[in-house]
Amino acid sequence: MPKDVAIIGVGQSAFVRGYEGSIRELSFEAYREAMQDAGITSSEVDASIVCSAPEYDKQRSPSGLIAEYLGLNPQPTFAIESVCSSSTTGIRTAYALIKSGLHDLVAVIGFQKMSEISSADSQERMGRGADIMWESPFGTTMPAYYAMHARSHFNTFGSTEKDLALIRVKAAKYGQLNDKAVYRKDLALDQVLNSDYVTTPLKRFDCCANADGSSCIILASAEKARELSAKTVWIMGLGSATASLSMTGRNSYDGLESVRLAARQAYEMASLTPGDIDVAEVHDCFTIAELMAYENLGFAEPGRGVELIRDGETYLEGRIPVNVDGGLLSKGHPIGATGGSQVRTIVLQLRGEAGEIQVPGAEIGLVHNVGGVGIYGNVIILGS
Amino acid sequence: MPKDVAIIGVGQSAFVRGYEGSIRELSFEAYREAMQDAGITSSEVDASIVCSAPEYDKQRSPSGLIAEYLGLNPQPTFAIESVCSSSTTGIRTAYALIKSGLHDLVAVIGFQKMSEISSADSQERMGRGADIMWESPFGTTMPAYYAMHARSHFNTFGSTEKDLALIRVKAAKYGQLNDKAVYRKDLALDQVLNSDYVTTPLKRFDCCANADGSSCIILASAEKARELSAKTVWIMGLGSATASLSMTGRNSYDGLESVRLAARQAYEMASLTPGDIDVAEVHDCFTIAELMAYENLGFAEPGRGVELIRDGETYLEGRIPVNVDGGLLSKGHPIGATGGSQVRTIVLQLRGEAGEIQVPGAEIGLVHNVGGVGIYGNVIILGS
Repeated sequence: MPKDVAIIGVGQSAFVRGYEGSIRELSFEAYREAMQDAGITSSEVDASIVCSAPEYDKQRSPSGLIAEYLGLNPQPTFAIESVCSSSTTGIRTAYALIKSGLHDLVAVIGFQKMSEISSADSQERMGRGADIMWESPFGTTMPAYYAMHARSHFNTFGSTEKDLALIRVKAAKYGQLNDKAVYRKDLALDQVLNSDYVTTPLKRFDCCANADGSSCIILASAEKARELSAKTVWIMGLGSATASLSMTGRNSYDGLESVRLAARQAYEMASLTPGDIDVAEVHDCFTIAELMAYENLGFAEPGRGVELIRDGETYLEGRIPVNVDGGLLSKGHPIGATGGSQVRTIVLQLRGEAGEIQVPGAEIGLVHNVGGVGIYGNVIILGS
Repeated sequence: MPKDVAIIGVGQSAFVRGYEGSIRELSFEAYREAMQDAGITSSEVDASIVCSAPEYDKQRSPSGLIAEYLGLNPQPTFAIESVCSSSTTGIRTAYALIKSGLHDLVAVIGFQKMSEISSADSQERMGRGADIMWESPFGTTMPAYYAMHARSHFNTFGSTEKDLALIRVKAAKYGQLNDKAVYRKDLALDQVLNSDYVTTPLKRFDCCANADGSSCIILASAEKARELSAKTVWIMGLGSATASLSMTGRNSYDGLESVRLAARQAYEMASLTPGDIDVAEVHDCFTIAELMAYENLGFAEPGRGVELIRDGETYLEGRIPVNVDGGLLSKGHPIGATGGSQVRTIVLQLRGEAGEIQVPGAEIGLVHNVGGVGIYGNVIILGS
């Protein structure tokens, strides 16, 4: 298993509604935590990558602004975007910058301040991530797309609204333990099932929330990590794939093909199988997304993902704990920050520093981060 | 000198005002040309990087849209942005993706359709690439920033408006030979000097024009290039650095510190000196930018760049031909496409395919691409 590039520091701001500071201050919150975690200063960072989705705040080319604020001049910086998977795309790119020999230590900063615009405007912008010529003018929004996936999964495999609700109940349970989550309330199954429909069959509690937040992941070469005597978690496997932007270009809505491909690549690179994963973070922007992830990542056969949640196998005590930090459903989903937040959770797990949600003896973890409706699929496997 | 990663195909659309198609069609124009040049099909491309500045067209996350249109699913794709230097940042990242072993063949597609919005809106958006809290609210725009640099250079070194006009005269001369340039008219020195002031001391003809356009550069590993029997131009040196976003954070306005640093990195990686460069493309968004580039790249000592243009040394027959394709001043500057267009020109030179503007025996070429007012500085050295 490769041990060429390590994660040596992780940080995350609280994910909140209506953050009062600017994007530079928001980014600093995660950066400071990650730098303290890594025990380094800005002059030791060779390059930075800033990950966010444009058009939420007024600042254009935010990487220049944020690099200056964080004391990261004159090192190179640039922006990477693959909507909701931007920060794992940034982490994969940082891996390449290090493995190629161009840099030894790279900071990947993800942020989003969604509260700068109204919730309706936010939906409209997310919709314009779909094809603005052939799809978004017809009113397609993210909840509607995932509702299509839910209907299809129900029809093909017999999964139900109750199965989705069980996923939210799990997320709510663990969200209470996460002091950086935007939702920290317990939810009973009935509460989820009785919440208003947003777009059938998805209800309010099947959807994650907009949030403001930031994350920061510091990566280093093996040599630099040794030199710094850093705490290391290794990048074992990386997978990245796409599906057609247009829904009409897909063969099936029962899962996300980009994720299946990305998972295969990541397992192959790591020489591991789904059974080797001790703990996972999956991109549960909607409950149906987590259910599909169980199957697309190989934790369950197609159509049998429901058994994992019905049997409690993705709880902390189960066979494969998933999103025991509350997931996007509890934490909130500040687009550019989300993937970094997922990676942070897994890094803390593999370092044995996850506190109340620690999976005992976790050595291998997986992150699944999706952009759009599976347009972009990223999978990262980490090992201690 | 490194011969690990090669450019095996280059393409560019015509740079025009008011392109009538969509961004996907615009991107296809450069892509088709590059793919034909490389002699490959989409299934052979391992990954694509899409470079553009957001907020010109309505499509968000354009990489997903363009990858689908170009037949590049399910390979990974993502967007990179460093404003006007986006596509050279993309090329540097593609180099890392290949050198790291993650991919063997990567397409870097740059595009911008600036005509989707008004010229005034375009200025406003470019202004918001500066700090929206402390600078752009005071009306700073790109011409104003570069005018500060011109004033400073005049004061420190005694350069003049006439020196700047000489640079435009050269650009106009070569622009006539470039059938992809937006401006193809000869300009006499008096015409330039008598054009209206935009922001003193910069006049209309000191400024490049907004344009719609696309570029595409195909990179491959040495092994893949051999396997494809491809025409190869090698990436010899890469440099990338930043300066503070805020103008108040700079020590001097006589040049661009990010470029000086990036040039030093690129020369060092290539084990070359400025005297080894046979032909160069520099980022002449304004005439003063080309003058500063002469000095920041080491073609002339600080303050002596004027001698190069006064003595005709940067003409085709001179010591160091610069922007003999007409530069941004003649070609136009479709933000995300510009760096790729510069690289294309140098690749054609090094392959001996530059036609009327061929620099005889050119073996080493340099590309200088700047984002914002030197916030981002990229230098690439290519060798045949």
